[in-house]
Amino acid sequence: MDRDEALRRLTGSRSARLATVRPDSTPHVVPIVFAVIGGDIVTMIDHKPKTTQNLQRLRNLEANPRASVLVDHYGEDWEQLWWVRVDGDARVIGDGPEHERAAAALAGKYGQYLDRPPTGPAIIIPMGHVSWWVSSV
Amino acid sequence: MDRDEALRRLTGSRSARLATVRPDSTPHVVPIVFAVIGGDIVTMIDHKPKTTQNLQRLRNLEANPRASVLVDHYGEDWEQLWWVRVDGDARVIGDGPEHERAAAALAGKYGQYLDRPPTGPAIIIPMGHVSWWVSSV
Repeated sequence: MDRDEALRRLTGSRSARLATVRPDSTPHVVPIVFAVIGGDIVTMIDHKPKTTQNLQRLRNLEANPRASVLVDHYGEDWEQLWWVRVDGDARVIGDGPEHERAAAALAGKYGQYLDRPPTGPAIIIPMGHVSWWVSSV
Repeated sequence: MDRDEALRRLTGSRSARLATVRPDSTPHVVPIVFAVIGGDIVTMIDHKPKTTQNLQRLRNLEANPRASVLVDHYGEDWEQLWWVRVDGDARVIGDGPEHERAAAALAGKYGQYLDRPPTGPAIIIPMGHVSWWVSSV
């Protein structure tokens, strides 16, 4: 796999996991849906945060913007395993053109968003570093 | 979902993601295969680490034992989404009875390990805190 192929597999994946670091230096990881716009990964909070759980990733990024996004393929044929990971410094955007662009990209990728467009903050992660692994079983 | 159901879904999952924190306070996340033994999650490095990439998660845990393990279900029916996450302090075990127990549990769960049993360090994560989420779309 080269970088282009890694980015192709990343872009084509339907879900990923977002890892951040809590203010107490412990790891936090949640599944996300996401879209790729140019050199950025974008994901959004569905609705304005109401609960602590919804806010944890935002609280983490406010204190420490470093984010790691992983897509991976698991299957019982271990010769076919692979993953792609992007590390970068996230920005959280509450409204404005970048927010609208993220919402449009996500609605374009996920028909599920058409009925209920995401309205919460957007998380924008420039793809600072891309790494990948493929099985060599 | 209650705790028992969360643990049932966790135990039945074929792959998970392990998040740790690097010594420079950035997040690190990799996919893993794992087994549940009593109150512990166990996963192993396939072979004695040779490369930096293999060692990163171990280096992280040596400096900061906090680990977060996520299993999640993604599907295009967003009413069926769920995840389960376990947070705990990991121990890394190079050999001995606990190492053998971890290898046996993994070989019991994954037939793929029968031909090539894992020989690298085992990571043991007591399930200190279990959290979960189910779609309420």
